[in-house]
This record gives sequence, C-alpha cells and structure tokens, in this order.
Amino acid sequence: MTERNIQVAELDRRAVEDQEVEIVERKGIGHPDSICDGIAEHVSKAIAQAYLDRVGKVLHYNTDETQLVAGTAYQEWAETGQPGAEKGGEVIEPIYILVVGRATKEYQGTNIPVDSIALKAAREYLGEHFPALDLETDVIIDVKLGEGSGDLQTVFGEEGTQIPMANDTSFGVGHAPLTETEQIVYNAERELNTTFHESHPALGQDVKIMGKREGDEIDITVAAAMVDQHLSGIEEYAETVEAVREFVTDLAQTYTDRKVTVEVNTADDLENESYYLTHTGTSAEQGDDGSVGRGNRANGLITPNRPMSMEATSGKNPVNHIGKIYNLLSTDIAETVVSEVDGIRDLQVRLLSQIGRPIDEPHVADAQVITEEGVAVSDVEAEIREVVDEKLANVTDVTRQVIEGDISTF
Amino acid sequence: MTERNIQVAELDRRAVEDQEVEIVERKGIGHPDSICDGIAEHVSKAIAQAYLDRVGKVLHYNTDETQLVAGTAYQEWAETGQPGAEKGGEVIEPIYILVVGRATKEYQGTNIPVDSIALKAAREYLGEHFPALDLETDVIIDVKLGEGSGDLQTVFGEEGTQIPMANDTSFGVGHAPLTETEQIVYNAERELNTTFHESHPALGQDVKIMGKREGDEIDITVAAAMVDQHLSGIEEYAETVEAVREFVTDLAQTYTDRKVTVEVNTADDLENESYYLTHTGTSAEQGDDGSVGRGNRANGLITPNRPMSMEATSGKNPVNHIGKIYNLLSTDIAETVVSEVDGIRDLQVRLLSQIGRPIDEPHVADAQVITEEGVAVSDVEAEIREVVDEKLANVTDVTRQVIEGDISTF
Amino acid sequence: MTERNIQVAELDRRAVEDQEVEIVERKGIGHPDSICDGIAEHVSKAIAQAYLDRVGKVLHYNTDETQLVAGTAYQEWAETGQPGAEKGGEVIEPIYILVVGRATKEYQGTNIPVDSIALKAAREYLGEHFPALDLETDVIIDVKLGEGSGDLQTVFGEEGTQIPMANDTSFGVGHAPLTETEQIVYNAERELNTTFHESHPALGQDVKIMGKREGDEIDITVAAAMVDQHLSGIEEYAETVEAVREFVTDLAQTYTDRKVTVEVNTADDLENESYYLTHTGTSAEQGDDGSVGRGNRANGLITPNRPMSMEATSGKNPVNHIGKIYNLLSTDIAETVVSEVDGIRDLQVRLLSQIGRPIDEPHVADAQVITEEGVAVSDVEAEIREVVDEKLANVTDVTRQVIEGDISTF
Amino acid sequence: MTERNIQVAELDRRAVEDQEVEIVERKGIGHPDSICDGIAEHVSKAIAQAYLDRVGKVLHYNTDETQLVAGTAYQEWAETGQPGAEKGGEVIEPIYILVVGRATKEYQGTNIPVDSIALKAAREYLGEHFPALDLETDVIIDVKLGEGSGDLQTVFGEEGTQIPMANDTSFGVGHAPLTETEQIVYNAERELNTTFHESHPALGQDVKIMGKREGDEIDITVAAAMVDQHLSGIEEYAETVEAVREFVTDLAQTYTDRKVTVEVNTADDLENESYYLTHTGTSAEQGDDGSVGRGNRANGLITPNRPMSMEATSGKNPVNHIGKIYNLLSTDIAETVVSEVDGIRDLQVRLLSQIGRPIDEPHVADAQVITEEGVAVSDVEAEIREVVDEKLANVTDVTRQVIEGDISTF
Repeated sequence: MTERNIQVAELDRRAVEDQEVEIVERKGIGHPDSICDGIAEHVSKAIAQAYLDRVGKVLHYNTDETQLVAGTAYQEWAETGQPGAEKGGEVIEPIYILVVGRATKEYQGTNIPVDSIALKAAREYLGEHFPALDLETDVIIDVKLGEGSGDLQTVFGEEGTQIPMANDTSFGVGHAPLTETEQIVYNAERELNTTFHESHPALGQDVKIMGKREGDEIDITVAAAMVDQHLSGIEEYAETVEAVREFVTDLAQTYTDRKVTVEVNTADDLENESYYLTHTGTSAEQGDDGSVGRGNRANGLITPNRPMSMEATSGKNPVNHIGKIYNLLSTDIAETVVSEVDGIRDLQVRLLSQIGRPIDEPHVADAQVITEEGVAVSDVEAEIREVVDEKLANVTDVTRQVIEGDISTF
Repeated sequence: MTERNIQVAELDRRAVEDQEVEIVERKGIGHPDSICDGIAEHVSKAIAQAYLDRVGKVLHYNTDETQLVAGTAYQEWAETGQPGAEKGGEVIEPIYILVVGRATKEYQGTNIPVDSIALKAAREYLGEHFPALDLETDVIIDVKLGEGSGDLQTVFGEEGTQIPMANDTSFGVGHAPLTETEQIVYNAERELNTTFHESHPALGQDVKIMGKREGDEIDITVAAAMVDQHLSGIEEYAETVEAVREFVTDLAQTYTDRKVTVEVNTADDLENESYYLTHTGTSAEQGDDGSVGRGNRANGLITPNRPMSMEATSGKNPVNHIGKIYNLLSTDIAETVVSEVDGIRDLQVRLLSQIGRPIDEPHVADAQVITEEGVAVSDVEAEIREVVDEKLANVTDVTRQVIEGDISTF
Repeated sequence: MTERNIQVAELDRRAVEDQEVEIVERKGIGHPDSICDGIAEHVSKAIAQAYLDRVGKVLHYNTDETQLVAGTAYQEWAETGQPGAEKGGEVIEPIYILVVGRATKEYQGTNIPVDSIALKAAREYLGEHFPALDLETDVIIDVKLGEGSGDLQTVFGEEGTQIPMANDTSFGVGHAPLTETEQIVYNAERELNTTFHESHPALGQDVKIMGKREGDEIDITVAAAMVDQHLSGIEEYAETVEAVREFVTDLAQTYTDRKVTVEVNTADDLENESYYLTHTGTSAEQGDDGSVGRGNRANGLITPNRPMSMEATSGKNPVNHIGKIYNLLSTDIAETVVSEVDGIRDLQVRLLSQIGRPIDEPHVADAQVITEEGVAVSDVEAEIREVVDEKLANVTDVTRQVIEGDISTF
Repeated sequence: MTERNIQVAELDRRAVEDQEVEIVERKGIGHPDSICDGIAEHVSKAIAQAYLDRVGKVLHYNTDETQLVAGTAYQEWAETGQPGAEKGGEVIEPIYILVVGRATKEYQGTNIPVDSIALKAAREYLGEHFPALDLETDVIIDVKLGEGSGDLQTVFGEEGTQIPMANDTSFGVGHAPLTETEQIVYNAERELNTTFHESHPALGQDVKIMGKREGDEIDITVAAAMVDQHLSGIEEYAETVEAVREFVTDLAQTYTDRKVTVEVNTADDLENESYYLTHTGTSAEQGDDGSVGRGNRANGLITPNRPMSMEATSGKNPVNHIGKIYNLLSTDIAETVVSEVDGIRDLQVRLLSQIGRPIDEPHVADAQVITEEGVAVSDVEAEIREVVDEKLANVTDVTRQVIEGDISTF
C-alpha cells in the first residue's frame, strides 16, 4: 500500500480572518477574463467528452489559451435608438474570440473533430450565459488548435483507469474555510448573476466585486454592467443600481456581523450622464480585452492575503495536468477537512508534484492549520491526515468531476 | 434633353449559335467561388439597405472581396458513422470565410454597424442556401471591413435621386439571346438546385456544369456534389447520379433539337469507392478554396465565345460602381431588345463609361447585332436605339433592383 | 506516334486591329490585384522548387488564393511630416495579406515546410518589388495552407517526366500578334515600372493603364500612384506626372502611326490639393483591397475584344493545372506561329482539355486565323499545324519555364 | 503637504527564509508566456515613446494581451538535415503571435500609427532576443489594436507632469530581500541567458527554473531548450547539459551555504533519443502556447510562499495603470528600504489604491516587517516610513523608468 508523504503542521501566521487588512476580489462570469476562462473550460469539457465517446479515453489536449479582443458598441435606453436601428444600442464591431490550444485530432483511424467541437462549445457557452449577446451579430469566434507534441498520450478510460504520472513539477494550494469577506464577495457575484438577474434582467453578467476589510469594517465595491435594452432611462438605471446595493447589503449580513458598506458603480456621475451601461452585459463589447488565467483562481477568488498558484486552471486537461488537478484537489481537501473536522480556524493545503511519480503520491502534501482556541494541532492531525490520504487515493475523482462539469475552475 | 452616344451596327462575326465550337460553363451556388459571390452580394445588399434605413441614402462601400479557405471533412453514408459521432460524416476543420471590404461606419452622428451587419448577412446567406452545413460547427466567419477613402460619398436616396457621375473608366457587356447550350447550362444548374433538390436532398449545392457544343452535338458534363447524410450507400448514390443525368437530359430537350449527351460525375470509379461525396454539399468542406469574381459573369455564365468583363460584380456598390452597373445594365438592355424587337439572332451591347460624366451618358453605348435572314440592321436600328436610350435614362432602376435583390450577379 | 486533333480555320470576325472600337487594360504590378497575383505566383514557384529540391518531384499544391485587405495611410511631402514622425507619410494600419492554398506538407517521411516557405516567398516578393514599402511596419502577412485532397499527387520529376493526365475539362486561349493599342498598354506599364522608375523613384508601382481606340484615335489613360517621400511638393508632383505623360507618349509612337493622346491622373485637381499620392507606391495602403485572378489575363492584359479565360493563372500548380498550362501554352503557340509564319494578321489559339487524356493530347487544339491580304488560310495551314503540334509535344516546357520564373502569369 | 496613510507593522509570519518549505519559479525569457510578456512590454514602451515624441504626452493605451499560438517544427543536429533543406531542423508551421490591446490612434489632428509601431516593436523584440528564430520564416505577427473607451485620456507630459488619479481599486505588493533560493532561481536564468549563452550558443532562451527548498536542502531543476543547429549530436548535447548543471551549481554557491542539488532536463532519456531539443531555442516552435501575465510576477519570480498580485504588469500603460505602477513601486520600495535600513530580515510592502485619489496618496501603504534578532520594529519604523513616503512622492519616476526601459516587468 502506498505510504504518502503527508505533513500536518501549525500555520505560522494569523488566520486571515484575524489579520488587520484583507483584500478579496471576484471577477464575475461576464468579465472578459472570466469569459475566456469559461469558454476555455467549456471547450475542454466538450473535447474530453468527445474523446470518451469516440475512443473510450481522454487523449492529450489543452485548451487553456482563449484570447478575447474587445468589440465596439454604443448604448441606448430601451425606448430610444438610432434611426433605422432596433431599440437599444448595438455592437458595431463584433467581439473577436480566438480559441487556442492543442488537441489530438486522430486516433487509430478515428477522427476527433476538435476544431468543430471547440467552435460549437464556445458558441454554446456564450449562448447559455449571455442572453443579451446576439451570436449572429456580436461575436466572431475563431479557432486555432494545433496538434501538440505527438508522443504524449493520456490514458483516462472507462476500464481500468490507471493513475497518471506527474509530468511536471507543479504546485497546488487550497484554503478553508472562506473568511466572511471571501464568502460575501463570492456569493454576492453568484447570487447577483442568478437570483437577482432573474428578477432584474437589466443586470449584465459583467459584475466585478472587490471586498476590503480593515479590522471589523468591510467595504464591498461592486462594478455592475447594466444592459441598455432592459432600462427605460437613467431613473430605472439608478433604481437598479440601488437594488443591487440593497441586495448585496442584505446578502452580506447573512455572512457577518461586522459593519458592511456596499457601493455600486462608484465611478458613475449621473448628472453628467456617465454610467456603466452596456448593450450586451459585458465590457468586452467596448474596450476590455481578456484572456484565460488572469482572473479568479480555482476557488473563484483572488486572495492576495493567501498563497496563490499562478497556474491557469481553466481549459487544462483534467486527466494529466498536474497544476489543474492539484489546485482543485487541494481546495477540495481543505473544504472537506473543515467540514468534517471540528476546531479549525484556518487551513492551507499544498500539494507539490514530483515528476515521474503517480499523481496520487505527491512529493509532499502539506496541511498547515490554525486551530480554534483550546484545540491543539495534535488533536486534529490524525483526522486531517486521513482526509488528505483518502482524497489523494481518489485523485481521479477530480478528473471525473471536471469532465462532468461538477467543479468550477474560476 | 440628353443626347446619348448610341451606336448600332452589324456584329462582325457569326452568331455564337452558328459557330462551330461553343463552350459554356456555370458554377453552381455551392461552388466555393460562387459561395463567395453569394456572400459578397448578400452582404452588399444588407449594408445598402441599412444605409437607406438609417441615413436615407446609400453611402460609400464595396464588399467584393470575400475569401474562403477550405475546411477538412470526412464522409460517411447515412446509416454509418464513426464511433461516438452522429451518423454521416463531419467537418473536422471548419471552413474559414473572411469577408473583406470598405464601408462607411458613421455618418453625421449615426452609427452604421457594418461589421455586425456583414457578419449576420454572411451567416444568413449560408443558412438559407446550405441546409447540410451546420453553422455552429462547420464554418468560421471573420470580417475585416475598412473605412475606405474618406472623401467618397455616394448619394442614392429616397427623394430626388441624382444620377451619379462615373468615377472610373469601365466597361460593361451584355448579350442576348442565350444560345441553346447557354440556356441548358444555366437552367440545368438552376433547376437542379431548386426543383430537383426538393425531391432529392442528396444533391448538394456544389453543381458545376460544363457545356460543349461541336456543330450539332452538345455535351453536358455535370459535377454534382452529393450529401452523405441523405444517402444510404453506393447504390443510392448511383441512383441519384442517374436521376441527375435523366433530369438534365430531359431539361436539355426542352431547349434544343440537337443531340445532347449528359455525363454526371465522370471522375467516379464506383468499384474503387471513388465518388463525389461531401458532408455539407460543397467541396469547400475539403480542399477547394474560393473567392469573389472568379466564377460566373453577371449573366450567370462563363462564355469564352463572347466578350466578357473581368469585373467582379458581386459585392460592389450598386449606386456608383460603374463596372457593376454597366455589366448588369448591358445584359438587361440586350435581353429587353431581343424580347421587344423581332428579327435578332445575336446581340451584343457594350457600355463604356467616361470619367466625370453622369452614368446615364456613357462615352459610348454600342449595340452590335446579327439579324435573322431577311432582316436588315436598318430595319431594327431605331427600335434598338430606343430601348437603349430608355434603359440608360432609367439607369438607377438597376441600383434599386440590386438592393431589393431582384437581380442576380452571378 | 500521337495524332493530335488540330483544327486550323478562318477566324469569323475582323482582326481586332481593324475593329472600330478597341478597349485594352493593364493593371501594373503595384495594383492590389496584381500584388496578389505576384505573391501567389512567387509562392507557387518557391513551393515547386522546394518539392524538386527535397523529394525530386513536384507534389500536389495550389496557392492561387491570396487575399489583400487594404491598410490605412497618410501622405506627406518629402520635406514635411507630422511632428515626431519621419519625413513623408506613414502607414497607420498595416496592409493585411492572407496567403491561402493547398499544399502537401509531408512526403515519405520528408517534411516540406510549405507554410514557412510561403511566408518567406511572400515577404521576398514584396521586398523585391516595392522599395517604398517597409516590411517591418507596413504589412502583415498571414498564411493558411491546407492539405488538399490526400490522394492527389502530381509527378513532375527530374527523371523520366511523364505527361500528366488532364483532371478537369478546361480551356485556354491565346492571341497574337498584339494590336498596336495592346502593345502600347502593355509596354507602357512595363517601361514605367522599370526604365522610368529608375530615374523617377517618385513613380510608384501601382500604375494602371487603360487604352481605348476608336478608329484611328488612341486614348491612353494612366493612373499612376506617386510616392510622397520622393516628392518635395505639388510642383514636383506635377512635373513627374508630366514626365510620365511624355514618356508614354514617346513610347506609344514607337508602336503606332495613329494619333495618340495620353492622359495621366485625370482625377487630379491640383488647386484643391487632390492628387494621386501614396506613401508606399500602391493604393493597397489605403482603401483598395485585392485578390488573385481578378486582373490581367495570362498575357498581361485585359482585352474585352478578345475571348478570355476566367481561369486565375497565378499560383496554380504548373505541373497539372490544365487551365494554367493551356492558357500559357496557347499564348506561347500564338506568338510562335506569328513570329515564324508570314502573312498572319490575327490569330486565336484555343486548347480544350479532355478529362483523363494526357495533356499533350487536347480534345481539340483550334487555331483560327485572319490572313493578310493575298494570303489564303490554306497557304499557312500546314505551318501553323506544325507549330501547334510541336508545342503540344513539348507541353512540359511550360511547366519548367514557370518554375524557373521565365514566364509571367499576369 | 500631503499626509500619506503609511502603516508600519510586524509581519505576522516567519520570514520566508525561515519557513520549512519554499518554492520558487522563474520562466526564462524564451518561455512562451515570457515571450508574450516581453513583446507586450516592448510594444508598450514603443507606443508610449511615440506618444511623447509626437504629442508630448502619453495617451490612453494598454497592450497587455499578446497571444502566442505555437508552431510546428522538427529538429536535426547541426551536421544533418532533411534532403534539400539547410542543416539543422526547421519550423514547419510558423508561430502565430497576436498582439492585442487598445490605443489612441489620433490626437488633435496628429496620427499615431500604433498598429505599425506595435508590429515593428514585436518583430524588433524577437530579433533582439532570439538569434535562432528566423523572422522571415518562423513567425507570423498579427496586430489587433482597438481604440478603447473614447473619453479616457492620460496626461503624462514633458511639462508640468500632474499626478494621475487612480481609476481602479487595485493592489500592489513587493518584497525584499530575496531569499537565497529566490536569488539562485532568478540569477541562474539571467546568467544562463547572458553570460553562459555567449559561450554556449547551443543554449536556447527557453530556460525554466524551479527551486525547492526543504529545510536546508535546495533543489534546483532546470529545463533548458537546446538549439539543434549549434549541436553536432547527442554527445555535445549531453556536454552542454552538463555545462549548464555545473554553471548553475557554481552560481548557486555564491548565494548560499546550504546544500544545493541541480538537475537539468530531467525528462531526458538519451538512450531512447529523448531530449529537450529545439530549432529556435523556444518550445513555442512546437506545442507550447503562451500569453501575457501567466508567468513571472513584476519581480521576475513566481513565489507561492509570498502574497502575489494577479495583475498582468507587462504591456500596461505605465502612466495610469495603477496595478502596474503599484506592483513595480512596492517592489522598488521594499528593495530600497532593505538596502538603506539595517536590521530587516523580511519585508512586505503593499499599496492599495483608492479610486479618484491621486496615485501618490494610496488608501493605505502598508509595510510589514520581520526584523533581525535584536532589532525592534520601532527601531526601523521611522526610516521605513520615510522611504515609503519619498517613493510615493516620486511615484512618476516609475512611469519614466518603465518608458525608458530601466525596469523589467517580468
């Protein structure tokens, strides 16, 4: 039986929750960088699934390099518009999206039309998530998928799945539990883009949330792109902005007892007709480019108070890309430990790969913990070790969940 | 009143119908060059219409430069297919289409989103004419429309349309009546792609027809792309090829009493499984690139026995592009003369522009005629002159018909 | 021995020289369409040569689809310029050139880097012919070469060259001798772009010449792009325009005794500072797109008074593309006949291929002739037949000359 | 006088040098991500300089989105090669690089040809840094620069430079001093790509260095792309690999007394002819895509043991992009403090912007320090505060240094 190198130790800093200043950010799904993350990951899933369907195993690929070039647009309120045009604004120059990557195109006589699959998946993703974006006029999707190094071939099949070997020295890091500020930032975006959006279609998908905590004061700054065609004018715009503010304020209070201040679209100057208005719900329509791996980390947040991996997780092959797997797995481990083991105030899990060794046997799996008052590290060490060990033993679950779309990567 | 320079004279050659050897070709709407012509012209119409809707006049533009880069595909009969894929073949690498041109993007504060309009029009055109082409997987459409020379501005408005000035020395030529071979070639493609296709969806749009007449023997060679997903196998393929042959043979006999031989897909070698099979109905899916202006002339035919203009008509601005207007108008004049004036065996109309003069006053309008036996040129000269004069007086009708889609350009 | 089907007959029209109205055009090498022709043909030669060097025979390819998207530029006289910029104007948005085609990339284990070869050849061609175009700033060259239909393979090798089979029904046509107007138009462009340019670098490569003859009056209209950085101001511009006029007038008189009028840059309006000025010597810098096969025919001219082939000759594979070969060969035959056989006033040679037959055995080779007064067709028939027969026997010479760059295609 | 909010406090963790496990990485300048960083930053400098030269101030732009699509290549030793090709391998499909961004193209009647400048700068950068890359065959550079939001205009001029306002809530973080491992990793790459490369041109630019320290054992793993045309065969390859190992080992010992193990190209399997060989010196030639902001942070390292900013620094406008400025400035502050103030073992400087305030007045400037034994924070607080204050007062020095190329961003 495999003896894994699992270290459990005390974390040599204060819990983030207890630090004086904390900064947290989340780029919503409509941010140009997140659009690229989303497309890259959706394309990845479609290609992985096609490999499984067609040749029974996932072949070598990576699609983690989508580039978005912003378009040009103008905005008009719902009841106005330029002569001869439909009401509301328009995209004048389409957003250009280049899907880039490597993928095996043929395997033992079977074609896998990865370019066509990528094209369809990218359009599908945009269609599902961007109701105000017209795929016939507003976006050009181009695809450049090369073949990659010929001799690489990953094996993740239905029968007898083997544990792949790590082919790179890489590093994943996960944390739990989320601080109050992190929870607010994360959930505010998630709820705005689901619950709130359903009742307020004027809210676009490009919602960026910045949380700053100094001591016990939390400032939440929301930049929320509004959609022209759902707003009758500046008054309704202002109402929607205020509705966002109230919604986030209420939401925040379910996560904290600290004092929370929420500001929305702070750069607005309504008297001078300066507001954050879009036609499509994303700033990609006008002036904001994007690419993969520049935004949220694998846990959906940007947390400069915590160690982060630079690895772009979205679009990477979930079978053998050790950076992707270890970032997702370390996050999963941290969350599982915290939910199953009592007395933990802050936990950081790091997984470091070793080239040439099976990925369930990292060079080191290192869990650093800050315990609640009255709890010693030794009290929880065995339990933590057990969770880490079990999760590593089932490392291929991560692959499966990614392919089935059960884990988000950004 | 304008005194136009109209010359009527005897044509100094035999009627094409009476020449010993005659060659005629038509590239069907699914030929890669014709796809480009079709997109260029459809984009042109959409932009012209948008200008009329938004600023009340057609501004400067030309969209006559679409480039198609062939994709890659494989083919499978309707009931077979690669494992995990849908039945029938697939496009593996999408066809890439680059729509190129110049168009005014802003006029007195009004935006005209020409790039978005072009994108939509191109997709629309493909959607309408290519039922077996899946726009979500099989084609990437890119658009590069520049602004053109800033000071050009065409004026073709609803009120008080002025006659534009010719801004180039150009030349248009038209002929009538079509010879028997020309009629067969033209109508065979038109009928195959409409009537026949309705009952035989296995016939793709990429139908190329070559007619050769030597004396009184007419050979019609049809290259007809078949669509895999509508054919159960080689037998049904062969039946469809035979049905095409019979259809064209029957059709030919309504235009001639000469001996007609029809051959279809002559390069086939069924025993060696070599046949003209496609997945999408066009050879653009595999290996055949295309561009505008390389195929049919404005009358829908390639006729080396007759003078032809090199001008690419499709996609050109119908308000002020003198080459487009004069090619369409000279064809219209020739056809009208022949339908209204008796005794004409062959007529060739040429219009030559003069820079800086109104386009209804060509440098010379020259009608060359071969009369039927017993008819002198002088018998028909006055009538011909009258038609030419009236058509020139109403030159802007051509513009209007093009914008409304009542004239085909290829 | 091969018995070829060669027909010699009287041409059933007047010699073009004797027709009342004649129109001739030549697009100079700097016209956007000609730039594309030139690149396509230069790329073709480089690829053919690479095949010969690397695998000893020419493999399947066609590179006849270059697309040029115009750039944006401004112009300034040599001594002026915008602040901070070098003297003279600038290209603001580079010209975009997409080289498109099909080429075999691997043969029996040997790589042929056709994309890299095409890129280099395209840059090389521009570098050689466009001294005022800065390859580091003024042009973006992109390449999309696909693999074509896999089973096609042409065989044109060093040892034992076989005559290829015609794989298409195609048609070539050639004429000789050139009329006076044709000679003037052709040679005016050639001499302006060589002799004249050497002493007048202010003349750009984008020279378009239109010749029109009515009876015995020949009008030559020259549109000549001037290069800003070689001109001190409007006065020197006007002098250069006048020098072009005089040069062409003198040149014309060596070809004809008819009355010749030459006009240069007729659209100029110097008082209103409207002139034909460029920074790079081609209108591709600003507003004029281009593509292959839209300009000059294989003999370097556009001649609506004569039958023309629509075939784009430039960039086609010279080994087996029957359209290219027959257009070049029929021109060569016509010129050879006229130089070797006395008494010919106008000759038209047509070659029609027959699918599946060796290309030296056309379905029909048809020479139509107008003899000088006092000469009967029967007097020259045998000699003509002999030239045609011999040229057909040596059809592969055309291939060799194209690859070695000894024949121009546009 | 400005009263800045500067906080000095004790850092609540152990110095990184004292932590049990430390991981450090540097992607060399030839790594595909670094190529993109380098191009983006070089383009940025060229555009900023052009603005200064032409309109006397830096206008709005950002060029931080270069995307690299890997090419295809094969490799051969210096004395071998494929038949007909030059010795050494070849790039078969060029690397494709898309330079993306926003830039103002016209200002008060003056054109700034940003697209042409970007194209030239990108080629220049590659030419300067990649001697084995042939710009005529191996790379296609495309440019898509949009205009950005029209109303933004930055003002950084020669006279009377104003401090810009922060237009975003952003965050920069810097550290000093570097740990031993960090120094080794950073300098190993720098020295390999300069000193070592001069005497060993076989070493390519794509050098990736991973440092891992556990307690007092430092493992340095070098992945170094070798260049085929400078190596006679596997023996010389092996010698060069060994030379790299010795060079890095020697270098490491100048930075540490700890035990250092260096491994180079660990994935090699020479017996099976598996080695890390390239033709151009970068894995971008075959299978490795790249983009901006995915690699090294502003201090040239990836340091998961330290807080990092996700901000892509390269290519950002150095006048007003607060993320770029604060990341560079905080690093500069940390280094300056450590060089001027004695007794500091580890220092972390964070700058947090406040929208709408001048950038020299951050919301908070927070210096967290670990002092040497025997030194109290209070002993160094005043000195630290002074440095921070002065650096903030001279914040525009960063801008100037970036434009002049005196600071590296990756």
